[in-house]
Amino acid sequence: MPTDQLGVAGYSLPLSPTGASSMLTPPPWHFAGDVVMIDYRVDPAAAAAFLPPGLTEGPDPGAAAAVFARWQWCSDSGAELADPGRAQFAEFLVLLGCAHDGRPMARCPYAWVDQPVPLVRGWVQGMPKQLGEIHQTTPFPVGRAGPRLAAGGRFDGTLSVHGRRVVEGTVTLEHRSDSPPPLHTVPLAHTRTFPAWLPTDRAVHRLVCSEVTGVEFSEVWTGRADLRIFDALDADFAALRPVEVGAGHVFSYAETLVGGRALD
Amino acid sequence: MPTDQLGVAGYSLPLSPTGASSMLTPPPWHFAGDVVMIDYRVDPAAAAAFLPPGLTEGPDPGAAAAVFARWQWCSDSGAELADPGRAQFAEFLVLLGCAHDGRPMARCPYAWVDQPVPLVRGWVQGMPKQLGEIHQTTPFPVGRAGPRLAAGGRFDGTLSVHGRRVVEGTVTLEHRSDSPPPLHTVPLAHTRTFPAWLPTDRAVHRLVCSEVTGVEFSEVWTGRADLRIFDALDADFAALRPVEVGAGHVFSYAETLVGGRALD
Amino acid sequence: MPTDQLGVAGYSLPLSPTGASSMLTPPPWHFAGDVVMIDYRVDPAAAAAFLPPGLTEGPDPGAAAAVFARWQWCSDSGAELADPGRAQFAEFLVLLGCAHDGRPMARCPYAWVDQPVPLVRGWVQGMPKQLGEIHQTTPFPVGRAGPRLAAGGRFDGTLSVHGRRVVEGTVTLEHRSDSPPPLHTVPLAHTRTFPAWLPTDRAVHRLVCSEVTGVEFSEVWTGRADLRIFDALDADFAALRPVEVGAGHVFSYAETLVGGRALD
Amino acid sequence: MPTDQLGVAGYSLPLSPTGASSMLTPPPWHFAGDVVMIDYRVDPAAAAAFLPPGLTEGPDPGAAAAVFARWQWCSDSGAELADPGRAQFAEFLVLLGCAHDGRPMARCPYAWVDQPVPLVRGWVQGMPKQLGEIHQTTPFPVGRAGPRLAAGGRFDGTLSVHGRRVVEGTVTLEHRSDSPPPLHTVPLAHTRTFPAWLPTDRAVHRLVCSEVTGVEFSEVWTGRADLRIFDALDADFAALRPVEVGAGHVFSYAETLVGGRALD
Repeated sequence: MPTDQLGVAGYSLPLSPTGASSMLTPPPWHFAGDVVMIDYRVDPAAAAAFLPPGLTEGPDPGAAAAVFARWQWCSDSGAELADPGRAQFAEFLVLLGCAHDGRPMARCPYAWVDQPVPLVRGWVQGMPKQLGEIHQTTPFPVGRAGPRLAAGGRFDGTLSVHGRRVVEGTVTLEHRSDSPPPLHTVPLAHTRTFPAWLPTDRAVHRLVCSEVTGVEFSEVWTGRADLRIFDALDADFAALRPVEVGAGHVFSYAETLVGGRALD
Repeated sequence: MPTDQLGVAGYSLPLSPTGASSMLTPPPWHFAGDVVMIDYRVDPAAAAAFLPPGLTEGPDPGAAAAVFARWQWCSDSGAELADPGRAQFAEFLVLLGCAHDGRPMARCPYAWVDQPVPLVRGWVQGMPKQLGEIHQTTPFPVGRAGPRLAAGGRFDGTLSVHGRRVVEGTVTLEHRSDSPPPLHTVPLAHTRTFPAWLPTDRAVHRLVCSEVTGVEFSEVWTGRADLRIFDALDADFAALRPVEVGAGHVFSYAETLVGGRALD
Repeated sequence: MPTDQLGVAGYSLPLSPTGASSMLTPPPWHFAGDVVMIDYRVDPAAAAAFLPPGLTEGPDPGAAAAVFARWQWCSDSGAELADPGRAQFAEFLVLLGCAHDGRPMARCPYAWVDQPVPLVRGWVQGMPKQLGEIHQTTPFPVGRAGPRLAAGGRFDGTLSVHGRRVVEGTVTLEHRSDSPPPLHTVPLAHTRTFPAWLPTDRAVHRLVCSEVTGVEFSEVWTGRADLRIFDALDADFAALRPVEVGAGHVFSYAETLVGGRALD
Repeated sequence: MPTDQLGVAGYSLPLSPTGASSMLTPPPWHFAGDVVMIDYRVDPAAAAAFLPPGLTEGPDPGAAAAVFARWQWCSDSGAELADPGRAQFAEFLVLLGCAHDGRPMARCPYAWVDQPVPLVRGWVQGMPKQLGEIHQTTPFPVGRAGPRLAAGGRFDGTLSVHGRRVVEGTVTLEHRSDSPPPLHTVPLAHTRTFPAWLPTDRAVHRLVCSEVTGVEFSEVWTGRADLRIFDALDADFAALRPVEVGAGHVFSYAETLVGGRALD
């Protein structure tokens, strides 16, 4: 039923007479963030088991990344920025290299954020965000209590879920990079999912890809990395443990998420 | 696309090879809780503006309730109970009396919980749960630092959202009641909503009603009440401010939520 | 310098013109709580290494207890109870049996709470409270999502610190007990400590014991127990791991903490 | 009693056999932070009522500042930086201009942090830190979801305490400043306070001043500001409401806190 025949309005719940109570503003959503990203490799068969029909292994089976990010976001109005506690969130996500119709993409099997609005917004897109505690090192231009964004700088990231440590990563910067890490430049392929509820329902599952504009990278610093994934969740998650850890990267990034495109 | 053709499984996101990573278990979900509930009245026109087509004002236009509850829940396996931090949450919700096809129901225009699983589970049902801080008085059989569940006992409830106080309620018990408060005994009519994402999408809106079994009330204590709703959110929410405050009730309650039924 | 010559007033910081801003009210403080307690034994030599001069091993060297509790508290005015979020906290503590001058006491080497007021109040008494996440099972008189306070009821408690799981305990009730668990009936012997700050300072360390009145126990349910302490903190903490787990107990408890008494 | 005769060790509670469990490491503590600071003026008589004997009004009676800061800290070992969630905290504090023996200083009547270690460390120094929720805008070099650190950039800060909004501030950058804001360059004069506990105790109150080394400022951006202090706490706090709001400043800052010096 379209909203105009609904008597109540809103891009999302809560629906209300004017739509003013909607938890989510409609896209576009603008994001800027500081990213600590670690390339790694998983067992290619384990990665393949996470790909739905329509997605294939892609050019580099087993390629994966662990991404810690600290975001600030706003709607087109920018109104959210006036209340920084609502405009900021931290995120950790796992990316698996894959392809759709021969085009390289990334699949995000797991993601955690520390605020409810990005969590629910993730579910609208098909991005499987849950709630967790995510922290990452802040660089500072002064003093001894933080790295410089320069060779030798050390950046750590941590994820805890339900009071248990799940992921720890470390990047030690070595040099500037000519290009951003590949898995951060390809589209994300999600399965937009609406669980069944009524007796006659079948769950909605659509293979979609996120459409972004306004992508900007700051300079990218790269170095050696370490990644520790602990056995604190379920066996499916544990199957994506690193078999090899590659380089780490630290950069700032911005994008505008404008909506989704069907891949199925 | 049904899950068995999907290559990955799960009642909800995250989808994974075996389904073990799903954030939500499928219903039924069992709940037990301690409730502090305050009857009040809102402007009937304001309440009516929250009702979608298919719902009418019902037998008592303007009847409303503010409900503070502290829940424990589990799936059929009961496994969640072994990790109490995951099995417990606090909730505050507003109920408006209404009717569907002549049958008295309640509409929940606003709800807040303090844990992500009930939040997302709410969105599957069409219940507009957001994240907030909810607290209510605990009675104790000993000592001076809490009321007895008896005449004279005072129970307070509070809701804060985004670091701002939104609701405060107080109930002072006077006597046992013969029956539970009416708005806690009728079905909840929700609009199950899936926001649009793809360019060709229209949002999904289904008028549904929750189906529960195993309803149990403890004895109900009733008394005088006070309710303060502050101007900390949007104008639609503010329109549901009390024009009159009625009785308050304190009781324990259990139900099993088995799924939804279409009302449209 | 006494407060009356100080120009500013308050039982604790923050000091302010009238004293109204003090974070702590002065004692007495009234407490009521629900307790899940597990008797266990540690290596007696490890326990002895936690006892300062003046305390001896006591009648049962190696006797220990793990205590999960959910408290509500108020000052003499009772004013805190009107804002339940400020009047409630959860606590986990370790107790070691000991003695002073032949009188059985308990030493609390570690304690965690989830609110700042009890943390700072702990430091005034010499009780080493830190901040953690503590959860324990709630019993309910109705439904399937919680135990009854009766034989067969299962109660779990958990402690996480800095996003890592530290303690898990389980009690399965078997029968009512004639008396409360001994380590919950003896005085607590603390080392009231004020760290050094000025160049000429030596830290203040006073061996003290807490003085309580108004002790009340509800009926005590007892049964078999399990206790898991994980290697997530430091080696001193790890030395208090259980070498044997005894009975578990579930009860409500109240006391009024009126102040301290010197033991040195 | 000195620690070496104590049988247990530690700079602070918890005392343990080796001292490894101490919540606090001993000073020095190194800090680096991003600061949003707003100059304002309070009623000089209200400010004077917060000054203990030994402190006088100083050269500019009524001068005050509201300081939002996001810190990272470590001990000499730097070990804390590997777990960013433990090494970071946010802070809001109020500063009042004053003088001691003719030397300009600042008095901090109120401070809030969002982590327990800086809270307890504050109480060792005499700094009246409580727990609150503090947020401030992050600048980004890319995208639309954050200001640049440049003319026109808008920075907001917020403080909520006990689920109530207490302070909101806004700074809009106009130009680089030649020098840091004066109230951020003078020593802080605290009253190191240990509340009474034993019947014969008098509270310890020492007028002290913090000693810092390694002070570094990044470039300072300055502009127009707004500051809103809400009536959500007690009357003493409310007396420090702004009677005039001055300039705002955004900068990074580092210092090493090495200990205290007696002023009395």
